[in-house]
Amino acid sequence: MPLSANNPDRSSWLHVSKNSDFPIQNIPFGVFLTRDDIITIGTRIGDTAIDLGALHQLGYFEGIPLTDDIFLQDTLNDFIADGRKTWRLVRNRIAEIFDSNNTKLKNNLKHKEIVCFRLDEIEMQLPVQIGDYTDFYSSIEHAKNVGTMFRDPENALMPNWLHIPVGYHGRSSSIIPSGIPVHRPQGQTMPADSDTPVFGPSKLVDFELEMAFITTDANDLGESIPVNEAEEYIFGLVLFNDWSARDIQKWEYVPLGPFLAKSFASSISPWIVTLDALEPFKIDGPKPIKPQLPYLQFKGKKSYDINLEVSLKPKGAKESILSKTNFKYMYWNMSQQLAHHTINGCPVNSGDMMGSGTISGATPDTYGSMLELTWRGEKPIKMSDGTERKFINDNDTVIMRGYCEKDGTRIGFGEVSTQLLPIFNPKKKK
Amino acid sequence: MPLSANNPDRSSWLHVSKNSDFPIQNIPFGVFLTRDDIITIGTRIGDTAIDLGALHQLGYFEGIPLTDDIFLQDTLNDFIADGRKTWRLVRNRIAEIFDSNNTKLKNNLKHKEIVCFRLDEIEMQLPVQIGDYTDFYSSIEHAKNVGTMFRDPENALMPNWLHIPVGYHGRSSSIIPSGIPVHRPQGQTMPADSDTPVFGPSKLVDFELEMAFITTDANDLGESIPVNEAEEYIFGLVLFNDWSARDIQKWEYVPLGPFLAKSFASSISPWIVTLDALEPFKIDGPKPIKPQLPYLQFKGKKSYDINLEVSLKPKGAKESILSKTNFKYMYWNMSQQLAHHTINGCPVNSGDMMGSGTISGATPDTYGSMLELTWRGEKPIKMSDGTERKFINDNDTVIMRGYCEKDGTRIGFGEVSTQLLPIFNPKKKK
Repeated sequence: MPLSANNPDRSSWLHVSKNSDFPIQNIPFGVFLTRDDIITIGTRIGDTAIDLGALHQLGYFEGIPLTDDIFLQDTLNDFIADGRKTWRLVRNRIAEIFDSNNTKLKNNLKHKEIVCFRLDEIEMQLPVQIGDYTDFYSSIEHAKNVGTMFRDPENALMPNWLHIPVGYHGRSSSIIPSGIPVHRPQGQTMPADSDTPVFGPSKLVDFELEMAFITTDANDLGESIPVNEAEEYIFGLVLFNDWSARDIQKWEYVPLGPFLAKSFASSISPWIVTLDALEPFKIDGPKPIKPQLPYLQFKGKKSYDINLEVSLKPKGAKESILSKTNFKYMYWNMSQQLAHHTINGCPVNSGDMMGSGTISGATPDTYGSMLELTWRGEKPIKMSDGTERKFINDNDTVIMRGYCEKDGTRIGFGEVSTQLLPIFNPKKKK
Repeated sequence: MPLSANNPDRSSWLHVSKNSDFPIQNIPFGVFLTRDDIITIGTRIGDTAIDLGALHQLGYFEGIPLTDDIFLQDTLNDFIADGRKTWRLVRNRIAEIFDSNNTKLKNNLKHKEIVCFRLDEIEMQLPVQIGDYTDFYSSIEHAKNVGTMFRDPENALMPNWLHIPVGYHGRSSSIIPSGIPVHRPQGQTMPADSDTPVFGPSKLVDFELEMAFITTDANDLGESIPVNEAEEYIFGLVLFNDWSARDIQKWEYVPLGPFLAKSFASSISPWIVTLDALEPFKIDGPKPIKPQLPYLQFKGKKSYDINLEVSLKPKGAKESILSKTNFKYMYWNMSQQLAHHTINGCPVNSGDMMGSGTISGATPDTYGSMLELTWRGEKPIKMSDGTERKFINDNDTVIMRGYCEKDGTRIGFGEVSTQLLPIFNPKKKK
């Protein structure tokens, strides 16, 4: 099926500013509350949010096999379960409806008023009900940095790392959309030079700059997904801030892995950018350093050239860019991750989410966490207001952004922006 | 609210054999398909399955605040979300309806035919849609055994183990009810004396004898559950077989914990026995070896005296009991697990499931896995047909059972029975 929605020559009758992440070639999917407090599935062109539920009721998706209520839901799970063929038909149709040369909706003021919203009229929600969430650990630079700091610089990479897209199960219940603040977590830590743990607020709250992909129903119990078919089951990607409490993590993680250090919150950008929209930005990934088992060997380009950056905004001050990196640095790509995840017969369902792991490049200005950027706090970073940061302070806001750019077309993700609040005060409980 | 359903003097007009796990004092909750292929929520007394959806439609729950369709669903999640007060009202009412002295339903043949099913007329389903699943590691004997075998006998327990109810996030999508067979998983393993991993069927498939509890909506993001309130949020328990591939686990688990070694399947018994039904079997747990932080300190009895056993049935042969153990051995109890899980503000929702970790006692005949029972395969176990087992063979069936008994009342869980099939054959794909 042709990806006509990707046509770089197409423009929209909706206003799209020059550096927008959301030209008519993007057409991401999300869920929002409208000014009338109705929840709907939508897309975005420029700074206009588009109510797909209303568009469907008005007949604009005629001819595409969709249930009547497919967009009148509070999650994208059912639409995603409809499969790639349907996503493409819908995305292509949206491109046609909003094409500069199509006046049908453009000239129908009544319809436009029902369908189109300014961004300040809507409130973005979590786009999917996440069944299972897995986090990988697929940046070789990040794995080396962490191994160097916490274990042995001589053997920074664990013996399995070059053979396995190492990953672990994460907590779905604490995944939140951009804009929802997060409280500094409390927990157990082991002070240096002590043999008794203490309880209190984490002193080392950190972000992890990641991307995450959302899957459709892929396989039944017992079945595996071949690496070269994996992208058929990936709906799209979001920016992902995998909040981490480094001191809690250090004390708890041996031998079963990170637990409470991660499960207090994880934040995602609210618009899912489809894999189809990212198709023009596929590139080769890093060459394997060691041979990989056949089930992980793939054909063609499976990496994506996505520019990423993370900023920190102290309360009342301007934001400072902490790092600029790229999704293309990932040693293990999404197809390998999905093939590995299912090689044992583990079922992957519509709305499952898989994080890349912290994305770090080779140089210090491309690292994806404060842990690495300040090297365990040894090299504090100066903010715009003159204060310094080793980790994240109360009331700081962490903002991640990402976009692809090629031949004049820019496809972006918007942002995931999250403020860290002080520890939760039960007296303020609802 | 009085737990009148627990009255030991009560008997039912339904036949209950002497050693039944399901006397009228039990009243567990489950989901089943009826002979008419209708899915419903039900309970069980003796060998009779009871359709609660039908009972409700016939007005037997009059006076209890329940939505009309609360039992006409394919999971218990919404009923569990109604909270403990409602569970108790419903359980007490069921006890009244089926009490020997109550002839209302007993003498209504038409109603009885609609409501009561023989076990061979129904098919048990997964009772809840499990949002997040966490597995703890709370048996000190199991942790010591594993630490002795895989790490260092002198330091078998990790330094954090006596301070933290260690746990990790598991995979919800591969949790299945009793009776669904499981395929031997394939994956990467590292042969002894090699530095290159190989791909193939796991050679060391094992069970883990556990119990798991199901929660109701407990807290919002940021909030914690105090240890002494935790049981208010626990709906009930099931038997839990946490299938494990030891060779895959050994190669993959450092540093982020078990992943594919566990996510190929986990099996649960289909009837959730409520914490209320288990109330008479509360006892004191093991004394803490080291002081515990205040948020883990509890008042009263929080452990449960539940007899457990696991059997292995080779194909075509009789089953052999492998181990008899008890849930009371757990060093960390469920209240501590839930308090710890939420101390960082992680939300716990209706239908979440938390496993205890393998339950082992102090002596070898009480160990909860083949890994421990055969001590890494060094001491094979003889089966009824003369064959030996180090781990689980293709076509073997593993059966776990559990019950409480006190003063003539027995409350049981039935069983979780799962056959291990050979590796999945894609040619047989649906």
